[in-house]
Amino acid sequence: MADSSRIYTAALIVIGDEILSGRTHDKNIAQVAEWLGTQGIRLSEVRVVADYTPAIVEAVNTLRLRNDYLFTTGGIGPTHDDITVDAVAEALGVGVVVHPDARAILEGYYETRGGLTEARLRMARVPDGAELIPNRYTGAPGIRYANVFLMAGVPQITAGMLDALSGTLEGGHKLLSETVGCWVQESEIAELLRDTEAAFEGCQIGSYPFWREGKSGANFVIRSVDADVLAACVRELVRGLEALERPAFPGGIE
Amino acid sequence: MADSSRIYTAALIVIGDEILSGRTHDKNIAQVAEWLGTQGIRLSEVRVVADYTPAIVEAVNTLRLRNDYLFTTGGIGPTHDDITVDAVAEALGVGVVVHPDARAILEGYYETRGGLTEARLRMARVPDGAELIPNRYTGAPGIRYANVFLMAGVPQITAGMLDALSGTLEGGHKLLSETVGCWVQESEIAELLRDTEAAFEGCQIGSYPFWREGKSGANFVIRSVDADVLAACVRELVRGLEALERPAFPGGIE
Repeated sequence: MADSSRIYTAALIVIGDEILSGRTHDKNIAQVAEWLGTQGIRLSEVRVVADYTPAIVEAVNTLRLRNDYLFTTGGIGPTHDDITVDAVAEALGVGVVVHPDARAILEGYYETRGGLTEARLRMARVPDGAELIPNRYTGAPGIRYANVFLMAGVPQITAGMLDALSGTLEGGHKLLSETVGCWVQESEIAELLRDTEAAFEGCQIGSYPFWREGKSGANFVIRSVDADVLAACVRELVRGLEALERPAFPGGIE
Repeated sequence: MADSSRIYTAALIVIGDEILSGRTHDKNIAQVAEWLGTQGIRLSEVRVVADYTPAIVEAVNTLRLRNDYLFTTGGIGPTHDDITVDAVAEALGVGVVVHPDARAILEGYYETRGGLTEARLRMARVPDGAELIPNRYTGAPGIRYANVFLMAGVPQITAGMLDALSGTLEGGHKLLSETVGCWVQESEIAELLRDTEAAFEGCQIGSYPFWREGKSGANFVIRSVDADVLAACVRELVRGLEALERPAFPGGIE
């Protein structure tokens, strides 16, 4: 049974030269982070690594041991630069096998699409002992081995795999958050933020400044696992801002 | 003098709970990656860490030692959650001091904006021995200490700091790239990609599939530091695709 009082953490490894070259703008960090939040799991760290086996092995072995869950995105396709399965198997100290269910899924998917070639069969390879994560878009499944989850790099496919995992992982209380915006330079109210955070145990206040049409503003994100403490902290912050004649905008300024 | 035949690498640490919660979509990874490419420096790894001193210290000390350069974004503002300067100083084993030039810059900037308060003066604090990186937008400078560069989290301000650093760092040959698009399932041409890459020394071919209106396509990114080898590899790949009756789109498919 889930212990809802403890904090569950996950790490994410984004695998791919295309992110490190700047060519592709990653969308999976935000997507995985948001999904984890709804599962009561906190994303504690992310690494972006190249399509290079030693880099993947190092990241997998550091992160899987110090987090409840480890997710990876990228590198599970059919081409020569897709090395995630082999690298993760090496990290786990197991061999790579063709998963019979994955093979059957791909045979079905490619039956009307030119057949299951050698390249496509690569997508049925998994670390020995792994289970599959369904992929509703393109057949080729994601892979789960113990607390490690290998997902696609293409964001729509990743989204489908996350959806298939929804509700299946043990998590704790969701971290709740509220946002309050204000047209103010954050440096004007730094003391108010610090003191308000300190007054409510377990609350964190993040301050995110922006500049728009020459005006300074900031959004303050208040987080807590306790809804009552969160609401009280938000009220106190709004009161503090208004005492400084800085009207607060509940929900934040877009 | 720069040794243009060797590969210069950099790492990036993105610091901030707002990225790990999914609230803020990171824009700095792609921006820093692209800028590094134009400086002849390769982004080798990225970590996203929380506003938590031990996490920052660990990342800084691992990455600064195994890369030519280390960049950080985020956490150098005036509020209580801005802990980057202190954490990096701890990692470097030096104290934190108020930099006299940073103080003077902030005094000038805030002269007509309510004066230099205690909170604002926090933005003049640097690891002892550091230099400043100009910030043309909001006064508060970035910070350089040896091969470590601390930059703002707000992407426009980061861009200004990168601009100020342009041409000042030793780099090697730029990694050149060309993109070729094709309406094809990447699994159909996996062998062609692998063989073409193998035939041109120092060339890498990345394959990035997409699905649009029910059609499968992929962009292939060919990379090399040698313009002639790159052009030859691209020609060979285009020829190979056309031999399979798959017309190639130079520049890629958007």
